[in-house]
Amino acid sequence: MDAKRIDVLSDSTGETAEKVVRAAMLQFPHSGAQLRLHTRVRTKEAARPILERAAREGALVVFTVVSPELREFIHASSYELRVEALDLIGSLIGKLSVYLDRQPINTPSAMLPLSDEYFRRIEAVEFTVKSDDGKEPRNFKKADLVLVGVSRTSKTPLSTLLAQRGLKVANLPIVLGVSPPPELEEANQERVVGLTIGLEPLVEIRKARLRQLGMSVDANYGLKDQVKAELEYAQSIFSTHPSWPVIDVTGRAIEETAVIILESLKEREEARLIAKQIV
Amino acid sequence: MDAKRIDVLSDSTGETAEKVVRAAMLQFPHSGAQLRLHTRVRTKEAARPILERAAREGALVVFTVVSPELREFIHASSYELRVEALDLIGSLIGKLSVYLDRQPINTPSAMLPLSDEYFRRIEAVEFTVKSDDGKEPRNFKKADLVLVGVSRTSKTPLSTLLAQRGLKVANLPIVLGVSPPPELEEANQERVVGLTIGLEPLVEIRKARLRQLGMSVDANYGLKDQVKAELEYAQSIFSTHPSWPVIDVTGRAIEETAVIILESLKEREEARLIAKQIV
Repeated sequence: MDAKRIDVLSDSTGETAEKVVRAAMLQFPHSGAQLRLHTRVRTKEAARPILERAAREGALVVFTVVSPELREFIHASSYELRVEALDLIGSLIGKLSVYLDRQPINTPSAMLPLSDEYFRRIEAVEFTVKSDDGKEPRNFKKADLVLVGVSRTSKTPLSTLLAQRGLKVANLPIVLGVSPPPELEEANQERVVGLTIGLEPLVEIRKARLRQLGMSVDANYGLKDQVKAELEYAQSIFSTHPSWPVIDVTGRAIEETAVIILESLKEREEARLIAKQIV
Repeated sequence: MDAKRIDVLSDSTGETAEKVVRAAMLQFPHSGAQLRLHTRVRTKEAARPILERAAREGALVVFTVVSPELREFIHASSYELRVEALDLIGSLIGKLSVYLDRQPINTPSAMLPLSDEYFRRIEAVEFTVKSDDGKEPRNFKKADLVLVGVSRTSKTPLSTLLAQRGLKVANLPIVLGVSPPPELEEANQERVVGLTIGLEPLVEIRKARLRQLGMSVDANYGLKDQVKAELEYAQSIFSTHPSWPVIDVTGRAIEETAVIILESLKEREEARLIAKQIV
């Protein structure tokens, strides 16, 4: 049987379309389907050869195009060429148009002027990269979020993911026997989150890491004891800061932990507002 | 008139759904509509109150839910409560099921085991954050991509964005009169990309930056000359490396520049393969 191919066609960067298709494909594990991304497709001349190839190869086409003319052309061409094509954003734009009682501007997002929110996000990413791994303790008080945890609790990928959402994030590794810098106490304590992880999974991660670095794992008899002492030390720091939520990252995808962190920030914010009203 | 509200309801982290809705909302600028995200909604009991509130407040509901039962429940409840609800991923999953000739597993993505690709992405992010701003020249030869350019050519946000897509990225600032470290020559030259930007826009960005740092802009008479010399110095480095593509980031969103970089890597890869065949 022929290989399955999915052509994703977008008038912008295709990031959104690709994300949706990849999310849907997770529901069909090991399907072996190949995804091909076609970005900045903004004319009939650019779209047509992609559809023709899809017809020849029996590929499925998924598209996000905001121009109604180009959308119509893709629909008509697909019908003519007998290509299965799915409009990913058309019906959403239609519903939004009715609900908001407005006409869409029909301009590809990559051609729109950059928003204030965009520049805030860029600034958040730069802040976050500079504030990784405890490098800028002075930034703790400027941060929207400070993540604290032992090595390999996903601090760096969590920080950059949340930065993409506009949060300025700093993170601080907890190292056995090393007191956190005094700047941590100056941070908004409502904005500090502790990260922890199970002992066994952490031992496994550290072993894999040692192997990767070409070091012998057997040589490190004391690894488990050392990891245990580290986690206990982190716990002792957390227990002197009862206002910090502590999130267990064991077995969780970064994306899920990120959502839990955002929910905990929201809850603390709401609790603070309620407390204010009571006073 | 009431404020417009859009409830985004997801059985996972809601990242994909939020991205799609935000992309569609760009077509309705200044609509003032508020987006509310409801994550990890996996039961009828969790979904019902969200739909009831949407009914009371006349909100639009957009959902991504993989369980057919929960999807059916949301459809039925929306009909009963007269809520406008749009299924964002249902028809895509349906089409994929027919095209791939397989049944979907109907498990929320956040509950699936983490894939190898996921771990590669995490590793890429960690590599990239460590290799920001020329901090780890030793990493140039291990990198999938090395970005080279003067300050404020978006090296950091570009690097982290591409890292989320699984690329190990290192970046190096070009500083007037400072020679790039010898490690740059040891990097795979097919994987180096130069970044440039227009003189005037860069002068504006630098001025804004000085203001932000609380410095007087007037005091810096020579700013424009200095920026010009810097860009010329960068150009002189680029011209001694004709194999590097040089991308102008002026007025471009990070997402768009990222796509251009990916396309240029692909083209060079293809050119190399063709050259090999000819030989």
